[in-house]
Amino acid sequence: MESPNKLSTKFKDVSLEELRVKLAEFAKVRNWEKFHSPRNLLLALVGEVGELSEIFQWKGEVERGLPNWSNDDKEHLGEEISDVLLYLVQLADACGLDLGQAALSKIVKNAQKYPLLD
Amino acid sequence: MESPNKLSTKFKDVSLEELRVKLAEFAKVRNWEKFHSPRNLLLALVGEVGELSEIFQWKGEVERGLPNWSNDDKEHLGEEISDVLLYLVQLADACGLDLGQAALSKIVKNAQKYPLLD
Amino acid sequence: MESPNKLSTKFKDVSLEELRVKLAEFAKVRNWEKFHSPRNLLLALVGEVGELSEIFQWKGEVERGLPNWSNDDKEHLGEEISDVLLYLVQLADACGLDLGQAALSKIVKNAQKYPLLD
Amino acid sequence: MESPNKLSTKFKDVSLEELRVKLAEFAKVRNWEKFHSPRNLLLALVGEVGELSEIFQWKGEVERGLPNWSNDDKEHLGEEISDVLLYLVQLADACGLDLGQAALSKIVKNAQKYPLLD
Repeated sequence: MESPNKLSTKFKDVSLEELRVKLAEFAKVRNWEKFHSPRNLLLALVGEVGELSEIFQWKGEVERGLPNWSNDDKEHLGEEISDVLLYLVQLADACGLDLGQAALSKIVKNAQKYPLLD
Repeated sequence: MESPNKLSTKFKDVSLEELRVKLAEFAKVRNWEKFHSPRNLLLALVGEVGELSEIFQWKGEVERGLPNWSNDDKEHLGEEISDVLLYLVQLADACGLDLGQAALSKIVKNAQKYPLLD
Repeated sequence: MESPNKLSTKFKDVSLEELRVKLAEFAKVRNWEKFHSPRNLLLALVGEVGELSEIFQWKGEVERGLPNWSNDDKEHLGEEISDVLLYLVQLADACGLDLGQAALSKIVKNAQKYPLLD
Repeated sequence: MESPNKLSTKFKDVSLEELRVKLAEFAKVRNWEKFHSPRNLLLALVGEVGELSEIFQWKGEVERGLPNWSNDDKEHLGEEISDVLLYLVQLADACGLDLGQAALSKIVKNAQKYPLLD
């Protein structure tokens, strides 16, 4: 069977729960939990989305796979996308929300909203 | 051993790679790949961050665990956080970036940036 | 003398102070001031930036002047850009910040940062 | 008559058109117009909204007037709010949109949406 997306890089098989546990421990041992209210984490997430946007801001349209980007630029991008993800996991955790379940449910809901035509 | 975060809900064990594959297939069978350029996905992500922010905008400070929120509000929140995650996974995929590896690397880098004091 | 930007539409001569006064009165007579804390307004601003981004999200690159946009799309864009501006004015006001002065000062600072070469 | 908002700082009377002209000239003389496509400016705006959010991210709730902020923090805030405004003005200009007119129209529309009760 063909890959569903030839441009795709297979992701290392990291689970959302693994990230949640690592980040909760990271914050706990640094005594940072007191800063991790939902709205603080949300604003931190917005800050990281801003940094991610800055990478793309003056580039005009960018092709899938980033064919002309340097390794340094790709590494920087990986860091900024990760920062968004890490705050998103922490925000879900601070809200008592099961992000893995929520994500799977949303995909099912989207499939119902956009049914395949025969 | 105690949980690192008593408020935490354990996440269902969903991996980033599982989400990537599901989303790549979802887009492929709907012929949506042509819309999924990096900047399109980034702007869609910003749109979802906006919807997530709207949930919190008039609430003043919100406590961890969302003690006074209705189930409907929590479900809505789960959908919006998921939308951000799903576009983030697709953005990484469109950029040929291994999000799982990038996230783990960023946690290691953050640990070096903020070392534990004895 | 030529216009500095031929695509430009001259703006109606509305001042930031005029907008501030209108918005402060609007909130006061509706008893909304209690909601207008800085972080509430900031999150509302992020929500509007999201709605603005949604207009552009699936369009690929867009040319200056929006040559192929319908009047309805342009009107919608005008509303969303305005929503961002109106929350920005209210955020500055809630922070006790003189936005007009701050904006002029920032332009001067930018000119020092990016000096013209002979 | 009392001020509509005692916390308010009167803004210096700067018009949106004045900012538009200054910014268009600024870009023209630096030969930056080629970078100022609508989506580039939008992503730059998102970047600045991120920087604005970072100022507020770890502060918990913040009172109107920022009573405990240092002058340096207030100055930094003024710069970041201004950066958002300056990109917003440039985005409207790049779209051929009259931001002053659009903002006034949106306030009228909001008044119709939220009528005053007797």
